[in-house]
Order: sequence, then structure tokens, then C-alpha cells
Amino acid sequence: MKVGILGYGNLGRGVEKAVCAAEDMELVGVFSRRDPSTVKTVTGAPVFHVDDLASKKGDIDVLVICGGSATDLPEMTPKYAADFNVIDSFDTHARIPEHFANVDAAAKKGGKIGIISCGWDPGMFSLNRVYAHSVLPGGKDYTFWGKGVSQGHSDAIRRIEGVVDARQYTVPVPAALEAVRAGKNPELTTREKHTRECYVVVEEGADKARIEQEIKTMPNYFADYDTTVHFISQEELDCDHKGLPHGGSVIYTGTTGENTHVIEYSLKLDSNPDFTGSVLVAYARAAYRLNQEGVSGAKTVLDIAPSYISPISGDELRAHYL
Amino acid sequence: MKVGILGYGNLGRGVEKAVCAAEDMELVGVFSRRDPSTVKTVTGAPVFHVDDLASKKGDIDVLVICGGSATDLPEMTPKYAADFNVIDSFDTHARIPEHFANVDAAAKKGGKIGIISCGWDPGMFSLNRVYAHSVLPGGKDYTFWGKGVSQGHSDAIRRIEGVVDARQYTVPVPAALEAVRAGKNPELTTREKHTRECYVVVEEGADKARIEQEIKTMPNYFADYDTTVHFISQEELDCDHKGLPHGGSVIYTGTTGENTHVIEYSLKLDSNPDFTGSVLVAYARAAYRLNQEGVSGAKTVLDIAPSYISPISGDELRAHYL
Repeated sequence: MKVGILGYGNLGRGVEKAVCAAEDMELVGVFSRRDPSTVKTVTGAPVFHVDDLASKKGDIDVLVICGGSATDLPEMTPKYAADFNVIDSFDTHARIPEHFANVDAAAKKGGKIGIISCGWDPGMFSLNRVYAHSVLPGGKDYTFWGKGVSQGHSDAIRRIEGVVDARQYTVPVPAALEAVRAGKNPELTTREKHTRECYVVVEEGADKARIEQEIKTMPNYFADYDTTVHFISQEELDCDHKGLPHGGSVIYTGTTGENTHVIEYSLKLDSNPDFTGSVLVAYARAAYRLNQEGVSGAKTVLDIAPSYISPISGDELRAHYL
Repeated sequence: MKVGILGYGNLGRGVEKAVCAAEDMELVGVFSRRDPSTVKTVTGAPVFHVDDLASKKGDIDVLVICGGSATDLPEMTPKYAADFNVIDSFDTHARIPEHFANVDAAAKKGGKIGIISCGWDPGMFSLNRVYAHSVLPGGKDYTFWGKGVSQGHSDAIRRIEGVVDARQYTVPVPAALEAVRAGKNPELTTREKHTRECYVVVEEGADKARIEQEIKTMPNYFADYDTTVHFISQEELDCDHKGLPHGGSVIYTGTTGENTHVIEYSLKLDSNPDFTGSVLVAYARAAYRLNQEGVSGAKTVLDIAPSYISPISGDELRAHYL
């Protein structure tokens, strides 16, 4: 299976590593909007300019699109779905139906598969929400994120005047987690579910009180949370906060008569982009296989049987993993 | 969707409750080998003799077969798969390939679907093993069971001379769980993973020392474990140990380069048969839908896309659960 990567940031590097770890895949190359001579890949994979994609149609079985959900993916995924089997990690939950429709139309026209919103949330967490609701209808699901780095929140802090660098951790509130795990089905406000911890490097002489105030009152990002701000040096940030760990839990409580059942799926990830990249690559396998069977159009993880993402044969899966 | 239940023990009752909780299903009735007049159902569902099944072919969309894996299911599932869409919870892991082949042949001949080995292990735990291995190839999975009642082990104790009643709990060893959750990938012996706790009621004047010795040295069941035996009264057993709770965890550790990722799926179930019944009923929905699409043959949870087990439409799943 020949795989191409479009876009080469943290996620693209995660996809590159995962393709190289998959024995049934070959990496055709990375396609970038930058000048290829300026891009160095982790595994030495070749780099092409994005404009070269048009000439590679026959050489790529699946194109993994590693772009941002705000502006890149809504445009790129439908565009390339007409000519390639594609997969993306579109994660703006509210706009998924619209994105699905756009990719579906393009992919069907080209007779290709377009898998959207693949990763861990949306992705593995979505699977677990749907499995749980299907098995025990009428229950309640909770999703907790963290402890982990939110790149969106870190970026928001970096845009404040006087801030040089920042890392923001999303942290689930232990008491909330405990109540949910105990099957108590609590009603939780945004503030009661997560706290936010910020590590911030500022310019010399910057007004720390003003910056702290601006962070804590920032609408959408911080205003609804209990937020802690720590001012540290760039050296401390580089040394203690250089990774992109993340994770979280989907916890579901349902009942059968008088009996209560709690289902929990949790992830503890050293690297968010590496894991997301690994999920994309597993589902890239499914995109290719489905298309080989003559299927086309947009799909999500909910539409794909687990055996399609495994390199192991059905016989072997039944014998050793069932 | 019209559902029939074949076999009416604890699992049959769990299936009955789940069918009644599903808004898109109707329970045709329970089919039993016993005299129907002696069987009382939980929800008042009608009871028929198993021989009446032959005349109900057109009235049942899916037949849920609730029998034992040792002798019932290897015979019953292939037999009924020729005439009905069927589903079972066959859980003798080593014999799954053979059972699959038998059900596949029968179901294909009749143009029906036969889903085998559905429940939580095999079932939901299998799904999680396959998802994890597919996303992070080359890692290691661990399955822990309990704390929960093992009906097989309880039965084994009851067969000892002088024993009136018994309840056996399988308990994961906390230190083993902790090491696995920490991503340490320990090599664990059977003894290091689980302990066994037995609550035993004996006849008056029975030789407790002999019974304890017989339990602790019983091959396959107890000899490889650290086993604790508590002798209690029938009243205590009925009062403190009447439920059938169970659960456990599938924990997977995989890496991407220098980064480690831990995936955990865990269940805490007040009633093992209720939950297993709920999983069967969700997949009964998939059996019916797949057959409506013209698909036939044997399937397992690994072959079925999550959206097939949900009563919710694809549009709604994408808008609210993805």
C-alpha cells in the first residue's frame, strides 16, 4: 500500500513514523507547501512540492492530509478526495456534518474513499461513545481530556502582548472523575470538569499581572475554567515542557433494570501527534481496502469494521485476538 | 425488528431485558427445552417449546441463542443458522475457528447471518485488543478479569463432595495491574495476574480441611493460582454473594519511536449476564441489518462497523457522537 503525506508539521511527522512502522505500507513521500529543499523528514522520506501531487495520482493509494481544521482541511480534503483516497483528522465537531457532505460529494464523483475526523477525539473516543450507547441505551457518557497539552490554548496565550512562549495543560478535576467512575451520573459544569494550567514565558519587564488577567478572562478559552498561571523562564519551558503528552477518558454509565454498569476507555499518550498519526495510518489501510472493494464516498470510524484497520488476516484475528 | 430468545437461564433473562429496552425491537418470545408452562419470564414475554421454532421462521428476524459453550452452542448455532439470522456468545476461545467455519457454512447455505462469540470477552474486549494492535502495531496487550464471579469456577467447587454451595471471585493482583498501567510491560505468570477467592457452604460435619485442599489443588481451575477459601453459612452466601458482578480491563502498551502510549478499556458490571445480553442484542440489530443488505455467513464483532449496532442514524451519530 503506497501512502503519501500532505502537510508536514507535528502530525505529519507522526504519520511518517507510523507508515514506516507498518509492514504493509510504503511511504511515497511528503508533499508540502514549503520549498521542498527546506523540509527535513524524520525518516529521510523524500519531499515534494504540493503541486507535484497532480502527477502522482497513479503512485499513491492513500493520501493522509495533515492540515488544520480551521481553514486547511475544509478546503483540502474535498479537493483531493476527487483524485485520491484521502483521510484527515478534522476535529471541529460542530462542522463535521458539513465537512462530511463536501467530502462525500467529491469522493463519490471520483470513485474514491474519504475518511474524515480520524484520530482520538474525534476518533477512538467517538467509537467508545457509540459502542457504549449502543450496548446500554439510555445511559450517560462523559469525556475528560488530559492531563495534556492543548496546542490551541497554548497558541492563544502566545498571542497575548508580552508573551514569548507558553504551554497550556488541560487537567481533569479528580473529584469529578471519581464521581463519574463511581456511576453517580453527576451534572457537571465546564468549571467542575477541567482546570487549566499555564506555563508562560514573558518578555523582560512585561506586566505579569496584566498578562495573567488577560489569560484568565479570555472568553471561550479560559474564562469558564479555574486557571493557574506560572511564569517561568524559556529554559525551564524547553526543559520541563517540551513534549506534547495528552490523553483522557470516555466514561459511560448505563443500567439494566436495577443493575449499573460502568464502561471506561482511557488513553495516556506520551505524544498526541504521534498517536493521532498512528490512528490515521491504521484507517488509511481501511480506506484503501474499501476502495479496492469498489466502495466510494465519505466515511468515519463509525462506518468501518475493526478488521479493516488490521494488517492481520480474519482467520488469525479470530484465532488469536477474539 | 422481531427477536426470539432460545434458552432461558441468566443470559436469556439478560437478553429479554435488553430487547425490551430497545425501542426498535419486539420480543416474539422465549423458546425453551423445558415445558413452557413451567417457565416464568421476567417481562411476561410468551414462552414456547423449542420445537415450535420451526413454525416461526417468518416471524423472527433474529434468534439470540443463549446456551452453554461446551455442548449447546457448537450444535445449536449451526443448526439454527440455516433458517434464522442467529447470534451467540460462544466463549471457548480455542474452538472459535472451528465454530466459525460450521456456522459460516450453515448460514451461507440458508442466506442468513450468524454472529458468533459476542459478549464482553470474547466481544468488547476483543474489539479493544484489535483496535489497539492495529493503531500501535508491535505492542503488548494484557487482559485482567474481575473482580467478579466466575460461574465455571463456582460450579467446579460445587462438584466437590461435601460442598452445598459456592461462589468464586476472580481478583486481579493490584501490583500487576499497576505495573501494566505504568507501561512497564512486565512478564507475568498466571499466579501473578489473578488470585481466586472462594466462599463455600459445606454439609454439616464435612471435612473442611479436605475440601479446602481439594479446591486449592484442583488442576486448571485453582492449582496455578493463590486461592483463599472462606467457609460461610448458606444465609451469608445468599445475602452477601447473590449477585453476578464481573468486569475487567484490557490494557495495551505500544510505542512510536521513543514515546510510549497506554490504552485501557475497562468494565465494571453489576451483572455479567445482563451486560452480555445487552451486547448480544446490540449485535442482533447488526445481524438483521446486514442480512437486509444481502450479506450472509458467519461474522464476529471484528467484522461489523459500529454504526450497524446503533439504533441512531448515521447523520445523527456524526452530529452528536463523533
